[in-house]
Formats: sequence, C-alpha cells, structure tokens
Amino acid sequence: MSILITGVAGFVGVNVAQALLAKGLRVCGVDNLSRGTRKNMSKLLKNPNFEFKKLDITKPNALLKACQQFSQQEAITECWHLAANSDIPAGVTNAAVDLKDTFMTTYHTLEVMKQLGITKLAFASSSAIYGDHGSTAIVEDIGPLLPISNYGAMKLASEAAISAAAESFLTHTWIFRFPNVIGVPATHGVMLDFVHKLQKTTGCLQVLGNGTQQKGYLHVEELVDAMLWIRDKASEKRAIYNIGPADEGVTVKFIAEETVRVAQPTARIEYGQGNRGWVGDVPRFVYSIEKLKKLGWAPKLGSIQAVQKAIRQIVAQEQT
Amino acid sequence: MSILITGVAGFVGVNVAQALLAKGLRVCGVDNLSRGTRKNMSKLLKNPNFEFKKLDITKPNALLKACQQFSQQEAITECWHLAANSDIPAGVTNAAVDLKDTFMTTYHTLEVMKQLGITKLAFASSSAIYGDHGSTAIVEDIGPLLPISNYGAMKLASEAAISAAAESFLTHTWIFRFPNVIGVPATHGVMLDFVHKLQKTTGCLQVLGNGTQQKGYLHVEELVDAMLWIRDKASEKRAIYNIGPADEGVTVKFIAEETVRVAQPTARIEYGQGNRGWVGDVPRFVYSIEKLKKLGWAPKLGSIQAVQKAIRQIVAQEQT
Repeated sequence: MSILITGVAGFVGVNVAQALLAKGLRVCGVDNLSRGTRKNMSKLLKNPNFEFKKLDITKPNALLKACQQFSQQEAITECWHLAANSDIPAGVTNAAVDLKDTFMTTYHTLEVMKQLGITKLAFASSSAIYGDHGSTAIVEDIGPLLPISNYGAMKLASEAAISAAAESFLTHTWIFRFPNVIGVPATHGVMLDFVHKLQKTTGCLQVLGNGTQQKGYLHVEELVDAMLWIRDKASEKRAIYNIGPADEGVTVKFIAEETVRVAQPTARIEYGQGNRGWVGDVPRFVYSIEKLKKLGWAPKLGSIQAVQKAIRQIVAQEQT
Repeated sequence: MSILITGVAGFVGVNVAQALLAKGLRVCGVDNLSRGTRKNMSKLLKNPNFEFKKLDITKPNALLKACQQFSQQEAITECWHLAANSDIPAGVTNAAVDLKDTFMTTYHTLEVMKQLGITKLAFASSSAIYGDHGSTAIVEDIGPLLPISNYGAMKLASEAAISAAAESFLTHTWIFRFPNVIGVPATHGVMLDFVHKLQKTTGCLQVLGNGTQQKGYLHVEELVDAMLWIRDKASEKRAIYNIGPADEGVTVKFIAEETVRVAQPTARIEYGQGNRGWVGDVPRFVYSIEKLKKLGWAPKLGSIQAVQKAIRQIVAQEQT
C-alpha cells in the first residue's frame, strides 16, 4: 500500500512521512519546496520506501503525472493532504496566497484523487476555521463558522470541498483540526522567531504584543500520534476531530522566558503593546478535545512540557 | 449612492435590481449572460438609473475596469454579489463549474471591492451550506457544516472568504441563506422543468423520483423584501440570516399536480423511484427562520401559496 503526502517537506509533512514509513508503508511525497526544504527531508530521502517529486500541485496535470509515475510501482490508495500556506499573516495581507496554497491545492488534489480512484483522504485542517468564539468551548460541531483570516477561510473552504467529495467519490475522510503545533523541523512560529531574534540582537528579546496572549500548544510527535489514532479508530465517513493539548495553554511571556532560559540566559525581554499579534490572530480560545478523548486518545504532554521540549529541540536545530 | 449587482441578469438579480431602483438608488449591474439573459432585464434596461455591462468577473481586471467606469458618474458604495452557478447537478458532475462560477466570482468581487474601497457586501448564500441535518431544525449557528454538493461547498467557501474580509476591510456584510426560491423570471427549477416537459410531451408529465420529496418554497418577491429588511435592520458586522417560508413545505407531488392543473388539466402524471432527485440534493430539511422573525420579518405566503403564485407566473411567462 502506498500513501501520497502533499506538502511532505514541511514541518508536519516530514513527521507524518516518518510515522507512516515506520508502519512499513510506502510513502510518495510531493512539495513545491516554497516553504518546505530538502534539508527537512534528509532522513526521509535515505529511506528506500520513500519517493519524492518536487512539483506545484496547482499547475495543471503536475500532480496527476507524478501520481501516475508513483503508481507504476504500487498503487496509491490514500492521500494525506498537508500542503498549505503556513504563513498566516502573509495571507492576511494578500488573499491570493491562501487561495492558491491553502485552497487550490486541496481542489486540485481532490480532482487528481477522483481521476485516479484514490478514495481515502486525510486533511490537515485548523482551529482557524472556527473564528473567535470568546470563552465558549470549541467543540467540533460548534457554529457559526466565521474565520477571521484568509488562512482559516481557505481551510474551511477546503473542508467544504472535501465534504462534497465525500458525497460523490471519497469513501474515507479524516479531517484534523489543530491549533499551534510545535517541534522540529521548525520552519515558522513564535519559538523559531524568538531564537532568530536572540541570534540577531544578542542580549535582548523584543516581543510583539504585551506577552499576555495565551494559546494551547501541541507537540508534533503527539499530533502525528493522534492523527494515526483517528485514522485507525474513527468510523464516520467524515471523521472530524479537534486535536490539541488538554489545557488552556501558556502565555507568550512563558515562551519568551523559556526561550531565553535555554538559548541565552543573560538576555533581557522587552514587551510591546496589546495582546493580538496581527490581524487574523485569535487572542485566546478554549479548545475542546473531548471527542478525541472519547475515541481513546489524550496527549501525554501539557502545553508547558510541549513548549519546553520544542524550545530545546529548536535551539539545538538552529545551532547545527 | 450607487449599488453594484453581480449576476444582475439572473432570476434573483433582476428582482433585487428592480427593488433597489424602486428605492431611488442607482444600480450598476454586471453579468456574463451564461444563464442570465437580456430578456430578463428588458424592464431594467429602460430605466435611466440602471447601467449594465456584460463581463466575466473571473477574468482579470474585467470587473475592476467596469466598476471604475460606473464610478465616474457616482461612486459605488455597496455590492450585492449574486453571481453564481445555479445548476446544482452540473456542479456535482464537474466541480470546476462551482469553483469558477460560485466561488471564484466571490473571490474576485472581494478583491475588486478591496481595491476600490467598497465596504458593504450583501451575499446570496444558500441552505446548501448546511448539508444534511435530518430532522434537526436548521438555525444559523448550527454545526457541523458539511455540504453535500459542490454548490453548497463553494457557497460555504464564499461565506468563509467574506468572513475573513470582514475582519480586514469590510464594514457591513449581510449573508442571506435561502433554500428554494420561486417566481419569475424563471430560469431553472422544478416548476419550469415541469412546464417544459408538458410542452414537449403533451398529455403526460414524467416526474423524477416518487414525488414524496418535500421542500419549503419562498417567492422571490418575499425573498427580496426580506433581504432589504435585513440590510436595513440588522446591526451585526456579519449579519447572517436564514430566509425561507415558515412551514415545512410542499411535496413534488403537489407541485406536479398544481402545474398540471394550471398548464394542462388533462395531462396524467407518472412518477419514478426514490425520494432523492440527484446526488447533492438534501431530501428534506427543517429550516428555522426564528432569527429573522425576531428581527421583525415574516413571510406573508406559505409554501403552498408561493408555489401556486409562481406556477401561474411561470406558465404565463412560457406562453409569451
């Protein structure tokens, strides 16, 4: 059995590929390498069960041809669609970024799956589809869905297209909605930013906002574990699950202090104003993973431990 | 004050344009005339406060240029985005239809509005965004949203893009979710189909399905009345309202019998099998308009009267 992964060279892609290979599956990966890198895939590329093709999914026939080639050895029966824009602020400034990289990648992936008869789809959706629900716990069937970023909008658009496809040709769909995921290979995010800032301006870490913004963080190793659990255990045709930590998260202040402690203990921290980093960022939300817990999975790490582990890994990554 | 209407030559577009002109507003309309027609606009085109330009919104710069021309006389301050595919089965067969006509029209309209500083948007959404909720009453904030047609998916995708735009540059958004709307100028739908079938095969009306499929129907005159009511009364930044009849609707059998009664009383009716006409059609749903009633609007006609009125109008339309 072969599995296609789109966006395989990205942060989540690399980790999913490693986990699927570890299960003895053949993995065929594609990526346009716009944000993902070959360096991220260095371990994968040595594995004989891994094949990689650089391509832009939104170019006509590029993905179709690659899949036809991949399938000559062994048919692809399942797709993990992870390709997306990961720079949310970029998509707020320019809606075309998320249209192309977050939505049109989904649309074209579905078209190719339909043509090739691939009927199982795992999709990396996002907590950003929910928009701002204040202090109401975000369960999977909450409404209304009013995303405040183009990223969230195009993830919701992708879910909608997948839902319609589940009515016509898909037999299995797993939609994973996750908030902030951390770990390595880190390609973006607040921790990597902090490490870079400390490298650039030794002795001082300048933080955007007043540091009170609070979010839940999940380590990528746990994310992958949860996704595979859902894939194996969920029975609904449209299996939609929140994946996240079981707590209300940690503040930016905590992350700043931990990063300084690990990377540069003598540096001082300077905070800005306000608790919202950029347009499209939901300042605080309560994320329910009760549905996932009922399916039998719960995270082992809390946000604190996940952040501490990821900071150590990211500092090490940036030193090599 | 000038108002832009996309899809102005379609069924809903013509009726909205007439209502806005009746309020003394200047209306600038665009349409690609793929489903809408100049004949539909015959009354509008005689009105000096109405301007029309044939164009495809999804062609680069076409809408931008037209809006710049329209604005030379008087600035456009508001847009009613009604352009969309109206042939739901066509979009089920080929996802590209709803991608282009239902979603990309929204995306490009938003881009042009952003460029020209038009900050008020009324959008014709659909009950199809909800998917199948069985016997649960469909209120505006129900979840999950799992559309089963590409039409519903691309309407939901449009709502998502509008929601994100409301966070960045739109000041007012009115999202109208309506189910089956009937009346004239009829361009598609079950009643027009029945009238055409009777013209083609005199003496016999063949019905797709067993006739037990039940739906609520709203007359277009009431739809327009409700939309203008919401535009004037709703205060939320993202004002989302179901619009529909206050009852559970009528069966296809009732519509068939009424059409025969008006158009060809001697014809017999032959029914098919099953209660679902085509993939992507939700067989029966309970549509709540409680939110709209709280805003002070309720339909005057029930589904029965709306259907009877529309059939008389459509039979008359097809005789001229």
